[in-house]
Amino acid sequence: MYLFEKIKKIRPPNKEIQNIAKQYLDGLTKPIGSLGELENIFIKLCCIFNTLDFDISKKNLLIFCADNGITEENVSCCPKQYTYVVTNNFAKGITAINKLSEFAKNDITIIDIGIDAKINNKKILNYKINYGTKNFIKEPAMTYDECIRAITVGFEFIEKLKKKGYRMLGTGEMGIGNTTTSAAIASCLLNISPEEVTGKGAGLDDNGLINKINVIKKGIEKNCVDINDPIDVLRKVGGFDIAGMVGAFLGAAYFKVPILIDGLISSAAALVAYKINSNVKDYMFASHLSAEKAAKIILDYIGLHPILNLNLRLGEGSGCPLAFNIIDAGIYTLRNMATMEEANLNIDVYVDIRK
Amino acid sequence: MYLFEKIKKIRPPNKEIQNIAKQYLDGLTKPIGSLGELENIFIKLCCIFNTLDFDISKKNLLIFCADNGITEENVSCCPKQYTYVVTNNFAKGITAINKLSEFAKNDITIIDIGIDAKINNKKILNYKINYGTKNFIKEPAMTYDECIRAITVGFEFIEKLKKKGYRMLGTGEMGIGNTTTSAAIASCLLNISPEEVTGKGAGLDDNGLINKINVIKKGIEKNCVDINDPIDVLRKVGGFDIAGMVGAFLGAAYFKVPILIDGLISSAAALVAYKINSNVKDYMFASHLSAEKAAKIILDYIGLHPILNLNLRLGEGSGCPLAFNIIDAGIYTLRNMATMEEANLNIDVYVDIRK
Repeated sequence: MYLFEKIKKIRPPNKEIQNIAKQYLDGLTKPIGSLGELENIFIKLCCIFNTLDFDISKKNLLIFCADNGITEENVSCCPKQYTYVVTNNFAKGITAINKLSEFAKNDITIIDIGIDAKINNKKILNYKINYGTKNFIKEPAMTYDECIRAITVGFEFIEKLKKKGYRMLGTGEMGIGNTTTSAAIASCLLNISPEEVTGKGAGLDDNGLINKINVIKKGIEKNCVDINDPIDVLRKVGGFDIAGMVGAFLGAAYFKVPILIDGLISSAAALVAYKINSNVKDYMFASHLSAEKAAKIILDYIGLHPILNLNLRLGEGSGCPLAFNIIDAGIYTLRNMATMEEANLNIDVYVDIRK
Repeated sequence: MYLFEKIKKIRPPNKEIQNIAKQYLDGLTKPIGSLGELENIFIKLCCIFNTLDFDISKKNLLIFCADNGITEENVSCCPKQYTYVVTNNFAKGITAINKLSEFAKNDITIIDIGIDAKINNKKILNYKINYGTKNFIKEPAMTYDECIRAITVGFEFIEKLKKKGYRMLGTGEMGIGNTTTSAAIASCLLNISPEEVTGKGAGLDDNGLINKINVIKKGIEKNCVDINDPIDVLRKVGGFDIAGMVGAFLGAAYFKVPILIDGLISSAAALVAYKINSNVKDYMFASHLSAEKAAKIILDYIGLHPILNLNLRLGEGSGCPLAFNIIDAGIYTLRNMATMEEANLNIDVYVDIRK
């Protein structure tokens, strides 16, 4: 089936089970709703899996790695080659995201979806669309065909991972220049000025930030971006990493696998997916509130509540394994704590407990 | 040594190690500061322990349980006997906090510091100051002597737990009526109106909330509370559970053991401790942002950044084990990820990676 036919078929999960899940939670020994977001997450997962007895022990973090032509405009304080070097470091198992994943016991999948270098490493899966995108200040970052192929890569990965038994996914990325592409996307799709959504990324100074904002403005203008068409926005000022994640979010909704958003870049991808089919929202979870200001604007717009508040701005998917710990703790607790009845909280008769 | 002499001796930790810790973190393979609060927590712990090689694997959550005379004024939707019943359930191991602690692998210490019932249970430690406090709308909740004894209980527990090898602590409580005592304390010590700091607790309706606010106003007026004297505030409108936690926060700072704040009640205790000696701040960590609005006001006032954002309003210490997971994940990651050098990120020479 053609990708867009599948995307059109994305429906909200069956919400009939919502009341059963809520009834179960309200019977536990605690004030109703007092475990807040832990309860909301539990209910959302019940809806996705259409059962209270889901098993999300097998988790995988997808890391989409790609270069961005826009780095020619000095929008990042990091050399472009870091995309290549850090992706190799993911494969070596030595980066923050490897250690966070070891702690949370999730697997990781490293995907080359457009690194501007030849990669010869079994641990880095070759789904290269091209050697980086084009410089969007001069021309569209990618062709329409490239964009759809990149989305398809992410979409199809969800099916593969679901077949392997994974029942909770995270999204991450590596791509120097991708806070620029993300801010450009957010500016277009939310129809707000680049100033409001552009941050300092890995560590720009004030002048660097001004340049980054100007580059985004010029790029949007030059490409005559149609802000009402998420695919047009994505292909003209986005990146392969973001397009891959857009596909992952759409695929997660289509194949009914819960998926976590990481930071700004991942949020920008979630926004594109949401604009394509807003039903994806019911399958997405926000792991944390990034230090990059556009992340909050996007999550508020979609209506998602971030679990953690750590001012992270690393990317790589770093918020996802951290949030996995909390989701697992919440489910363990809600499954194993006593009911009101077991806890003797249905006391109708006053017993003189002072004697 | 007399309690107040010890409290006066609370000093900030040795911050010389701060630069060494920061230098270590800045040498890791990530943009400087990009792991946000995880880095701040690591540095703060280095300062408390005066080493980069601290070991916080042994953790304990102290749960202070006590009744509040103010429940006579219908400030809670829960029957007062819940304090007794739920405390017994902690001992049975069947509540949310037991399960959250099992997941995070921390021990718990259940302390009867003033339950209005005879307790005969080895797992509930008897440090009862009295059978509940007095109704503060009529008279001070406790005598000065009772207040100091309750603080001392918490203070001395830290020494005992440190001797047993615990190197990270959490604070929790059980006491029907204690969102009322907490709001009263916050109103006095922050000098803001009860309206601004009073929430619906376990589940009051709108009229219940109005009554709760009026009760707090009357209590503060009736007792001529000296808002510049934290002990006067604590003893007149506080509770034994809060006083115990005040002692725990002061003790943690004195004995140099990091300690986590849970929700509103724990935050109110942290505020009292901070007003007694502001150096305690350097030993305290905010686990989460409670759904009770006063919690945010207090944490902002002290200057602490909550790790989690889950709209919890259960109490029991529930935020602490959840935050332990994140702190452990952060430390594991920062200790085990590669340095810039190991990660080949010090590339001075451009290598043509496309070939």
